[in-house]
Amino acid sequence: MSARERVRELVDAPGFQRAVVAVIVINAIALGCETSPRLLALHGDLLHALDRVALAVFVVEIALRWYARGTRFLRDPWNLFDTAIVGVALVPATGAFGVLRTLRIFRALRLISAIPSMRRVVSALLSAVPGMSSIAALLGLIVYVGAVVATKLFSGVAPEYFGDLGNSLFTLFQVMTGEAWSDVAREVMDKVPFAWVFFVAYIAVTTFTVLNLFIAVAVSAMEAQVAAEREPDPTTQQLLGEVRELRGELRELRAEQARQPAGS
Amino acid sequence: MSARERVRELVDAPGFQRAVVAVIVINAIALGCETSPRLLALHGDLLHALDRVALAVFVVEIALRWYARGTRFLRDPWNLFDTAIVGVALVPATGAFGVLRTLRIFRALRLISAIPSMRRVVSALLSAVPGMSSIAALLGLIVYVGAVVATKLFSGVAPEYFGDLGNSLFTLFQVMTGEAWSDVAREVMDKVPFAWVFFVAYIAVTTFTVLNLFIAVAVSAMEAQVAAEREPDPTTQQLLGEVRELRGELRELRAEQARQPAGS
Amino acid sequence: MSARERVRELVDAPGFQRAVVAVIVINAIALGCETSPRLLALHGDLLHALDRVALAVFVVEIALRWYARGTRFLRDPWNLFDTAIVGVALVPATGAFGVLRTLRIFRALRLISAIPSMRRVVSALLSAVPGMSSIAALLGLIVYVGAVVATKLFSGVAPEYFGDLGNSLFTLFQVMTGEAWSDVAREVMDKVPFAWVFFVAYIAVTTFTVLNLFIAVAVSAMEAQVAAEREPDPTTQQLLGEVRELRGELRELRAEQARQPAGS
Amino acid sequence: MSARERVRELVDAPGFQRAVVAVIVINAIALGCETSPRLLALHGDLLHALDRVALAVFVVEIALRWYARGTRFLRDPWNLFDTAIVGVALVPATGAFGVLRTLRIFRALRLISAIPSMRRVVSALLSAVPGMSSIAALLGLIVYVGAVVATKLFSGVAPEYFGDLGNSLFTLFQVMTGEAWSDVAREVMDKVPFAWVFFVAYIAVTTFTVLNLFIAVAVSAMEAQVAAEREPDPTTQQLLGEVRELRGELRELRAEQARQPAGS
Repeated sequence: MSARERVRELVDAPGFQRAVVAVIVINAIALGCETSPRLLALHGDLLHALDRVALAVFVVEIALRWYARGTRFLRDPWNLFDTAIVGVALVPATGAFGVLRTLRIFRALRLISAIPSMRRVVSALLSAVPGMSSIAALLGLIVYVGAVVATKLFSGVAPEYFGDLGNSLFTLFQVMTGEAWSDVAREVMDKVPFAWVFFVAYIAVTTFTVLNLFIAVAVSAMEAQVAAEREPDPTTQQLLGEVRELRGELRELRAEQARQPAGS
Repeated sequence: MSARERVRELVDAPGFQRAVVAVIVINAIALGCETSPRLLALHGDLLHALDRVALAVFVVEIALRWYARGTRFLRDPWNLFDTAIVGVALVPATGAFGVLRTLRIFRALRLISAIPSMRRVVSALLSAVPGMSSIAALLGLIVYVGAVVATKLFSGVAPEYFGDLGNSLFTLFQVMTGEAWSDVAREVMDKVPFAWVFFVAYIAVTTFTVLNLFIAVAVSAMEAQVAAEREPDPTTQQLLGEVRELRGELRELRAEQARQPAGS
Repeated sequence: MSARERVRELVDAPGFQRAVVAVIVINAIALGCETSPRLLALHGDLLHALDRVALAVFVVEIALRWYARGTRFLRDPWNLFDTAIVGVALVPATGAFGVLRTLRIFRALRLISAIPSMRRVVSALLSAVPGMSSIAALLGLIVYVGAVVATKLFSGVAPEYFGDLGNSLFTLFQVMTGEAWSDVAREVMDKVPFAWVFFVAYIAVTTFTVLNLFIAVAVSAMEAQVAAEREPDPTTQQLLGEVRELRGELRELRAEQARQPAGS
Repeated sequence: MSARERVRELVDAPGFQRAVVAVIVINAIALGCETSPRLLALHGDLLHALDRVALAVFVVEIALRWYARGTRFLRDPWNLFDTAIVGVALVPATGAFGVLRTLRIFRALRLISAIPSMRRVVSALLSAVPGMSSIAALLGLIVYVGAVVATKLFSGVAPEYFGDLGNSLFTLFQVMTGEAWSDVAREVMDKVPFAWVFFVAYIAVTTFTVLNLFIAVAVSAMEAQVAAEREPDPTTQQLLGEVRELRGELRELRAEQARQPAGS
């Protein structure tokens, strides 16, 4: 057995997988504890040490899996995901890269790639994305057109909501989620009474489009389910058996007939 | 007829079931009345007496059912549910256990186990839970990662929302339900203008995940329904009849053929 | 042709139906105009006259339809609906019955019974109600138990939300719709930090139950649709034709065989 | 090749389509930039020139497509849509028509007609509209009746929400979307305690109706999908093959029988 085969055996062992999951969970909890100034003051050294150990474990783990798989390693997008998440942590997080320290918690997302059932769920979610792209683009177009119109019409009336295009885009995203839209609308309507036309039309159109976005996802989920489960009707199966026996009997009949003339 | 059989007959009688339901309803109403200081002052003795009588009835009822079923009693989770709910009431509700007095109203939930149609509905609801567990775990992971990031980035900016990890978890649960998220986001964005990226991304991801959680429930509900109803296509049934008659006729033909040579 | 037959012909004429719809619409608009003090001051007499004329038309219409149908009239629930709505308007609307004047606008709902497509839609909606009753009862039970618990725990802390049982029921209905629940929860949590457990659990349970209520409606709607559309698979139909021809051919074969011995 | 055929070839070329899409996108971005006073001050001339060039391109494009297609051009509703959107921009946008300048951004919606996948999505969305019309009309009727009742009962109590019929219609639309309904309800209930009956009933009825509106859309979407995909069960196909071979064999048997008597 070559060294590579021995490594492959190691990384595929259930114990190895479970150990990695455990390290991810411990690391995620430690990073959660780091958000508490009190815990950081008391056990800061321990938490940082835990973080460095976890990072070391991940680097070794990914190196082993890469060695075991060879070039095929990079063909699996989940491996790229793992490598990217761990790789980010190796960038020196100082100066302009300070925000990268915050992203260390993204390592908790490695739970997704490490646990097969989570991986399946996320794959299923992602597989619904392409079917949504056209409706999502349409929704983006509607929000953009609405934002340009709203900025033109209401920027003087309610500058905190529609002051510039960015503001309007955020406000219309908010209205689309149905959050506090009446506050926005009533403030604008104080000055521009006919603004209700804009808001009611916008809500009707976006709600209808979002609904269809959701339906597209639901339909594709159900189809996948139905296609996977589609099994022939048991009666049809039974019928097939009957017809096959019928053919057998007919063949016997022909054989008998073929023997008969000789016997008569 | 043994004593146990006679008890079993008693507890299975529809009248017994109905009487228990009536006691549960009366007890629930009495506990509702107890929340009113005025009613408590006027009829407090009556309400407490009703409560104690109801409790006594439940204890006797469960004891009888336990006796009637023997050890099989504990195998039905609904019986465990009943026993636990009634058992809690027997703990002396003083001192640290004062909150247990509040839980007496949970006895009203015994309606679920006492009425068959409610029991079926709840069983159906619970049967959808395992199918949700992976997506629910994913959602929990997303909220946790979001909370750690938000605490790191916004704890200084909006301490009432993101002051510590617990606070952030609650706020992000609130944002996930779409409740007043724009208040939170606008307050943070006053200080950190690019915070909109976090909120829009978080809302998009959680909405999409929750949607898929709902679809998973809906799909499993529909499947259960479809599987229960699946009956063979009537045309296929008709076809099966035709093919069977055909086989019969062919058999008769063979029989005729077999007789024929002898007769010719 | 008897008088009754002639009346039946009249009330079934499309023109009669259309005239009634027109009167309903005019009456609804007139009642809408009556809400404006300015219009009422200007054209009050006209509006009241329109209302009385419409009422007279409805009374005559229902009397004619009743006469035309005889006792069968009362068997159709839509006719009972029409009669009740018009009958209410004949009660003298003075004193304690003043609120009944407000209910005159309910006559606009006669549009539902007068337009067949609306009638079908409402029938379809109502047919979904029985399938919802068990889950709706469960939801009511959950809200009631929640309200008793909340009143006990929070009545001192947030009396405007949980002051008494009625208050709590309304507040929990509000929380169930997801409306401003964080305002309620944050106010309570100021005093009772662990109240988040109650709110998160309550929202999770009611959202899940409401979702299943919706799914029950959706599933029953789809089933009705599917059942209505279910038509045999065309291939199965084709197959049935093949098998029938096969039987015919086999029968011919037997007939030939029966003739053959005589001919040989 | 006639001039018309050459033009037809030109407008059908993928390059032509892509160029039009590019002009639409550039025009939309330019119109977005125009909302910024700072960008308008700096590059106003460029932006206006871009707008005029884009408009000229659209006029030429539509003229060419019209010439290429002849009278059939106006039979395609998408062409009417394009023509109307571009035509609006040719109206002199001064005085009372000043608002038309704002509508120039609607040209961005030409992306829908210019990109086939967007066109399909919008066609699919619009095809769901007729199936919704009856329920939408019912919803409109419910909101109207609710608004008349609310104006009568609450106009004195909460004039900012229910002051006149228009106000009430807007407020009830807001309540229907579930937005800040508790603010409205609590303000009214301060004066009219029993108003909760109105709000709870209104929310229950409209939520149920809206849900059914959504289900109608979802069901029709799924049906369309299912109808498009419906393919015969593979087992049934197999069965059909078996039965056909069976018939063939039976026919051979008859042929043999027909030869046999002559040979015996």
